[in-house]
Amino acid sequence: MDRIPILRMGEFLLVTIQVDMHDQLALTLQDDLSEHISRYGSKGVLIDISALDIVDSFIGRMIGTISGLSKIMDAETVLVGMQPAVAITLVELGLTLPGVSTALNVERGMRLLRERVLAQ
Amino acid sequence: MDRIPILRMGEFLLVTIQVDMHDQLALTLQDDLSEHISRYGSKGVLIDISALDIVDSFIGRMIGTISGLSKIMDAETVLVGMQPAVAITLVELGLTLPGVSTALNVERGMRLLRERVLAQ
Repeated sequence: MDRIPILRMGEFLLVTIQVDMHDQLALTLQDDLSEHISRYGSKGVLIDISALDIVDSFIGRMIGTISGLSKIMDAETVLVGMQPAVAITLVELGLTLPGVSTALNVERGMRLLRERVLAQ
Repeated sequence: MDRIPILRMGEFLLVTIQVDMHDQLALTLQDDLSEHISRYGSKGVLIDISALDIVDSFIGRMIGTISGLSKIMDAETVLVGMQPAVAITLVELGLTLPGVSTALNVERGMRLLRERVLAQ
């Protein structure tokens, strides 16, 4: 596993994170994602973390970086599928995801992105 | 990693396979998928294998089983994102995917599913 696949769905991109992230994988994902946004002119990025049982500060920072990177390239980022236990842990540990929007699942995240793109 | 996430997108389901499959994971995926199809009345299943460098007979059989299972539950299955090297290897080894439709990427796969659902 040397890269996380990025799926193109219309004007949005979908990234499903299923495996433990490490430095190189996170860097490759950032590179691939910016390359995809540039090539396809994508207006939004959905990051699905429903497979993750643990979201630590490393993942949190990576999501923040991706969100900032997308924003510079005129794309919105929405984090979807967070498990209830992950949300509780984040709050208990005082970890925040500044500048990152969240939605319950992919469908709602996509609706949120559509509304934002239309509002522009 | 004890289960592969299934994302619901409108009337279709999306499964992205990123990790090496083993027996228990494949069984769990079949259970989860049939449960999702039943609960949401999904009309199609997209299986994305763009992250896989190798598709062996085990994965091939699993995809065939999922396709058969979905068909019984009135849902179409489309396999998307196969890497060129994987396609070459499948043909060279004489492995076939009987009864499974394929499409180049998620977008085309979704278009194919929409056409089929409309044609019903």
